Amino acid sequence: MKIALAQLDYHIGNFEGNLAKMLDAIRTARSQDADIICFGELATCGYPPRDFLEFDDFIHLADASIEKLADAARGIAVVVGSPSHNPRIEGKDLFNSAYFLSEGKVAHVQHKALLPTYDIFDEYRYFEPATEFNVVEYKGKRIALSICEDLWNLGNENPLYTICPLDEMQDQQPDFILNISASPFAHDHADERIHVLKANAERYKIPLFYVNHVGAQTEIIFDGGSMVVAPNGTILDELPYFEECIRFYDLDEVFRGGREILQPKDKMALIHDALVCGLKDYFGKLGFKKAILGLSGGIDSAIVAVLAAEALGEDNVRVLLMPSPFSSDHSVLDARQLAENLGCQYDIIPIEKAYQTYMELLESHFLGQPFNLAEENIQARIRGNLLMAFSNKFGHILLNTTNKSEMAVGYGTLYGDLCGGLSVIGDVYKTEVYELARYLNRHKEIIPENIITKPPSAELRPNQKDSDSLPEYDELDPILYQYIEKHQSPQDLIDMGFDEKLVRRVLRLVNINEFKRYQTAPVLRVTSKAFGMGRRMPIVGKYLA
Amino acid sequence: MKIALAQLDYHIGNFEGNLAKMLDAIRTARSQDADIICFGELATCGYPPRDFLEFDDFIHLADASIEKLADAARGIAVVVGSPSHNPRIEGKDLFNSAYFLSEGKVAHVQHKALLPTYDIFDEYRYFEPATEFNVVEYKGKRIALSICEDLWNLGNENPLYTICPLDEMQDQQPDFILNISASPFAHDHADERIHVLKANAERYKIPLFYVNHVGAQTEIIFDGGSMVVAPNGTILDELPYFEECIRFYDLDEVFRGGREILQPKDKMALIHDALVCGLKDYFGKLGFKKAILGLSGGIDSAIVAVLAAEALGEDNVRVLLMPSPFSSDHSVLDARQLAENLGCQYDIIPIEKAYQTYMELLESHFLGQPFNLAEENIQARIRGNLLMAFSNKFGHILLNTTNKSEMAVGYGTLYGDLCGGLSVIGDVYKTEVYELARYLNRHKEIIPENIITKPPSAELRPNQKDSDSLPEYDELDPILYQYIEKHQSPQDLIDMGFDEKLVRRVLRLVNINEFKRYQTAPVLRVTSKAFGMGRRMPIVGKYLA
Repeated sequence: MKIALAQLDYHIGNFEGNLAKMLDAIRTARSQDADIICFGELATCGYPPRDFLEFDDFIHLADASIEKLADAARGIAVVVGSPSHNPRIEGKDLFNSAYFLSEGKVAHVQHKALLPTYDIFDEYRYFEPATEFNVVEYKGKRIALSICEDLWNLGNENPLYTICPLDEMQDQQPDFILNISASPFAHDHADERIHVLKANAERYKIPLFYVNHVGAQTEIIFDGGSMVVAPNGTILDELPYFEECIRFYDLDEVFRGGREILQPKDKMALIHDALVCGLKDYFGKLGFKKAILGLSGGIDSAIVAVLAAEALGEDNVRVLLMPSPFSSDHSVLDARQLAENLGCQYDIIPIEKAYQTYMELLESHFLGQPFNLAEENIQARIRGNLLMAFSNKFGHILLNTTNKSEMAVGYGTLYGDLCGGLSVIGDVYKTEVYELARYLNRHKEIIPENIITKPPSAELRPNQKDSDSLPEYDELDPILYQYIEKHQSPQDLIDMGFDEKLVRRVLRLVNINEFKRYQTAPVLRVTSKAFGMGRRMPIVGKYLA
Repeated sequence: MKIALAQLDYHIGNFEGNLAKMLDAIRTARSQDADIICFGELATCGYPPRDFLEFDDFIHLADASIEKLADAARGIAVVVGSPSHNPRIEGKDLFNSAYFLSEGKVAHVQHKALLPTYDIFDEYRYFEPATEFNVVEYKGKRIALSICEDLWNLGNENPLYTICPLDEMQDQQPDFILNISASPFAHDHADERIHVLKANAERYKIPLFYVNHVGAQTEIIFDGGSMVVAPNGTILDELPYFEECIRFYDLDEVFRGGREILQPKDKMALIHDALVCGLKDYFGKLGFKKAILGLSGGIDSAIVAVLAAEALGEDNVRVLLMPSPFSSDHSVLDARQLAENLGCQYDIIPIEKAYQTYMELLESHFLGQPFNLAEENIQARIRGNLLMAFSNKFGHILLNTTNKSEMAVGYGTLYGDLCGGLSVIGDVYKTEVYELARYLNRHKEIIPENIITKPPSAELRPNQKDSDSLPEYDELDPILYQYIEKHQSPQDLIDMGFDEKLVRRVLRLVNINEFKRYQTAPVLRVTSKAFGMGRRMPIVGKYLA
């Protein structure tokens, strides 16, 4: 038996596009004499469809795709994820289902039992969990269909769940497992995934075929990394990260095992590839080609420019250099050098005149008030206005260049440097931004060395440094990581050896700046806990604030 | 037996404040010889605590409050909601629980079974549902404790759920029901709530005491309306909307019933009171006093100014009039008249000079390009910058004045008129905005008549009208309502008699503008489906786009 895994980039709500892509893959697989082809979880409608699932019309469109796929499933079986209707009155209206399509018909449907409802996941908002578990017979083989999370409660060891779907199928003696997933990327997630898949194959002593999505849906990035696991737990193949592909496997060979293929897992390379993928798909799926951003001469905007040029091509990236009276000479020089290294169109628009105009308009109202944040922010907002003017005039998407450390402590101007349709590095801590810069420069110096080595500054007042108002990033980032990603308490952090005053100050900054993050662009997610839909915090909350 | 219902305004994460308020109420109730006092669902930590619940430290603080309340529960029993720990390894870590505290101890804990996970609710993200249901005995009475949604599956008729918690307790023959809730306001929700409570009392033929939160947590507004229902379904008392209060009831009198007290339910009065409550609590809970907003001379900003003056006092509301070259004469006159009627501080800052400066900065870049959206948006963003400059200089919170119709179709400038910390009328359709204006003018003309009667215009180009680029609002709003609140499909809408071309155009506008709403301030929620946390849509989604 020959099994094809199709690791594809779906597009939420683009039924026609997703269907065309799958029909194309079915033709390819049939031409290779495959017996079964497997697509991803909710592949008809894309993942996560979120509240579109509440629209009956949306579900009907998914049903229509299933009909067309069933019709194409002649001479080959098709395994594909789609929402399906719960026929009972009680419980949620839908199941998250794996369809087994064969000879023009729906031969079998297996629903998902373990519905992730944490972080970015809201599955219990929409779906009723499965209570029945049955293998499907095809060409003399008994196949256990399984959906994503259903593999993640092996031996009932996951405290979130009380059922282990594959255990429930064991008395039906499946010959192999097909798992269709939509498992998002985080830079440290692949090892865990491999561990779980190996453990599943070993427990049941049968082959496991795992197919994942690839590509990004706004902030959520799917890395692919689909896998074929032999009964002894050997990873016979791990498909490439961040690439669509179809691969074919002979079931007997998988039973035999005997080789192990794993993708390389360098942290910075993965983050880099994920961000490029996220950028590419955000533009592609919205139907945009061109990006604009402000180059300050600092490291954050430099990195975003390089990533954008990689994702979209340097001809599609335009940058503005907008020095203010407080910008240092090297800022413009460094930024210009970077733009020239990249080959991007750049323009220099000094904002002093606009700044002076605002000062005149405000003079009588601000009389006697000392220079403060208000004047700093005016500069950032003039830049935002200029960038958006280009965006509106020429159809660029403005890229937000804020890093995760700044997002965390609110070091940024709402409607100023926090403008932009997509936050590219909002899930990358400042200390990691430096690592990423080194990675981008690994072959040649694209980002001028001075941009990497100079002390970070917003340059919104004379001789300003980030460290005037924030701790040094190598002190700040470990506290942020422990609090945001590990949910540590102030006392935990103090017990770890962090300075108490610093801990309280940092945690307070994080919590009182929720209002800024609420209005910031979606953030490409590369860790297990990114700002945005996976971290839901009250704005008026008074905890540690 | 004397039972006290304490309808209070809690504050998320403000354990000290919530505790002090409850201790105070316990003292009052004890002085009135009450036997039991009831507080709201998750009253220790406020509702909804969202992902704060994932922090062990946060839960420990809630536990500490329970200890202190238990200690105060001497000579009086205290019923209060708080998260509690799930002692089993399987399942979520927490329960959403009702504590029964008496004589310094936790006498009983009943967990919530029906965990709303839809719209603004995420309870299954955090909580394990109850599987055990027991009454608590106190002073010879058997009391059925129940939490909010647990009343909402009467006779198993709610398709979302498969269990009816109070049915499970019936063999223990409870004498009465105490339900602690956190049930948010929507202008049409009270009737439904009354219906459900009546039906519960009638089904079990025992008194039902229902206590709700009052006050707002960012976008979510609790209206109170706590109730006492006699065994025959008569509403013996409905507590006031949008007011904290403690009331006392003699159990024997409740058994007798015999009177019905209901609050008036005029739609515009309710929306008005809810918005004032939302404004007051947003400022109060963040520790701010003063608001600023731009007065355009249009009806939306006029309404927000009046509501803000009511909520915060006219001395705490400052308005800016910022005419552009495209503003009509009457705009400034109307806006000034309104500011004078309100007695708010106002300043006129013409933006022409700033606009000209931007035009000069952009001249060489925009050469040969016709005037379009870019130039329109520059004006809106200059105003945003000026307003934020005042906000940053003097500590005002900027109020967003966008209405629901504009939010829906993206008729607004991101980082321009979409600026602001709180969207006051973002859940009020434009056609309702007019009704609300009439309501605000019910005693005397605060909003000048001309503001209400002139055709709506953004005034960002010569002689512009909203109807140049949008359908008339009385055509637009019914389509928006059916799509957003009722999830109707294009075909449903066409079948209702709406013009097909218009339907497709409007639905497309709604869906392609998700990116703007993602970056807009939290919206005070007054309907069953507001933009924001209760409506979760993909940005790159291609459905109807």
